[in-house]
Amino acid sequence: MTDKGIPADFETRVRDDFAKQPMMATMGARLGAVRKGEVEVELPFHAGFTQQHGFMHAAAVTAIADNACGYAALTLMPKDAEVLSVEFKMNFLKPAVGEKFVAVGKVLRAGKTLSVANAEVYALKGPDRALIGAMQATIISAKAA
Amino acid sequence: MTDKGIPADFETRVRDDFAKQPMMATMGARLGAVRKGEVEVELPFHAGFTQQHGFMHAAAVTAIADNACGYAALTLMPKDAEVLSVEFKMNFLKPAVGEKFVAVGKVLRAGKTLSVANAEVYALKGPDRALIGAMQATIISAKAA
Amino acid sequence: MTDKGIPADFETRVRDDFAKQPMMATMGARLGAVRKGEVEVELPFHAGFTQQHGFMHAAAVTAIADNACGYAALTLMPKDAEVLSVEFKMNFLKPAVGEKFVAVGKVLRAGKTLSVANAEVYALKGPDRALIGAMQATIISAKAA
Amino acid sequence: MTDKGIPADFETRVRDDFAKQPMMATMGARLGAVRKGEVEVELPFHAGFTQQHGFMHAAAVTAIADNACGYAALTLMPKDAEVLSVEFKMNFLKPAVGEKFVAVGKVLRAGKTLSVANAEVYALKGPDRALIGAMQATIISAKAA
Repeated sequence: MTDKGIPADFETRVRDDFAKQPMMATMGARLGAVRKGEVEVELPFHAGFTQQHGFMHAAAVTAIADNACGYAALTLMPKDAEVLSVEFKMNFLKPAVGEKFVAVGKVLRAGKTLSVANAEVYALKGPDRALIGAMQATIISAKAA
Repeated sequence: MTDKGIPADFETRVRDDFAKQPMMATMGARLGAVRKGEVEVELPFHAGFTQQHGFMHAAAVTAIADNACGYAALTLMPKDAEVLSVEFKMNFLKPAVGEKFVAVGKVLRAGKTLSVANAEVYALKGPDRALIGAMQATIISAKAA
Repeated sequence: MTDKGIPADFETRVRDDFAKQPMMATMGARLGAVRKGEVEVELPFHAGFTQQHGFMHAAAVTAIADNACGYAALTLMPKDAEVLSVEFKMNFLKPAVGEKFVAVGKVLRAGKTLSVANAEVYALKGPDRALIGAMQATIISAKAA
Repeated sequence: MTDKGIPADFETRVRDDFAKQPMMATMGARLGAVRKGEVEVELPFHAGFTQQHGFMHAAAVTAIADNACGYAALTLMPKDAEVLSVEFKMNFLKPAVGEKFVAVGKVLRAGKTLSVANAEVYALKGPDRALIGAMQATIISAKAA
């Protein structure tokens, strides 16, 4: 056990759970860094998930932000917990143009039943990094649902 | 021209635009009814877009709700308009379990620059229909952006 | 007891709880109709709650929408329940100009722990009624928090 | 003029505009620090704006978060701009218990028409400071509306 009673295997639990999500595999999304209270999800550009202007679809950007928030919350939960999205709100700040997209989720409130997290989504193109989206989300511990 | 200056070809414009979205094709989503101020988007169950419990992924449900809201707004816009999502908020009311999912988007405010719409998402299983999600969204007319 | 196990005194409970909220009294807000799953909150125009253009402040409009959602949820809860706002999202559709404002909250999901409701806010001026705001909210049963 | 074409008088413009809002005076709210892209709004505890448990009402907390976001956006706008809230989403992380509440708004996107900001709201009690709320908001430049 680590401080605060969070099991030391939080990263393993996040990676195992992520691997069970078919949609992440279908999109080609993968986990980046997994820290206590902060998780990154990456999405390389994928033409199959674009919208009518050739940008990544709002829902594809949302998918990685949602997962970044949910797994950030999971890192601070006990061993047998699972996470479900109660709700989220997403702002689209710029068109999702880039070679790769990275959602960085951070926990604002770690609760027994409800957690709150936010995520920033960046588009990477060569040396440039632009903030293209922002999410604020409520997550429930599935055992408590 | 119809009443209120909305071009009579609103349905054609919606269907043409929808057909240009690779993500909708990848998911197997299709347009249902297209009325002035109200649009339906359908998504048959697709195992490739599920999450860790085998339910449709929150982001897949969000994708059809987002499109239902955006195209509902487009039906009330002038001929050369395009729609982009400014932001949306989505609540998940029940697990997305079913054979087919239908998002019904309706316009609350049709503005020159900004429109506001909401969507309800239903899961269909045999004769049963359950409300599983609700979105409230802000859409911008792309020409005005 | 009524059907579904909802205590018949739901209106009394809502009115008693509303009466305990100093902010509602300070603003001059009052309850309108209280039905199972649907509650109205009214706010006569009050110059002390306006913003820089003389319209009712966004937060004043939000206050009655929040209460309409919360009390709509409370009508479907057991006797000893109390409601707290987990989160809400509010769109402002038109400037809040009028003699009176009415928020109509309706339950979308009545859960043991979490409920979801939405509210529409109308501005009344003489014979005219305009939709000026829309909220989508998540409410928690306080005993379960 | 400062760098990026933002008029040097941004603080004066924010303070003048804030002073014109009756609701802020009624609540006893006041501006704290005003920096480019970041504004603080403070609210001393006020029994007239509490809810049924004696905590500050969700809408009172929302009021200062809304103003912190809007004025943060205004600091990055040209001289003749005014701000209106398009929409916001607010999460309540803890009961609003304290002697003073401070909302810190920061701009995520400064656009010609639309800006996006978020705000964190803290409760202060003696030496303690607790994060009690988080907002994500969309603001429109009134001249462009």
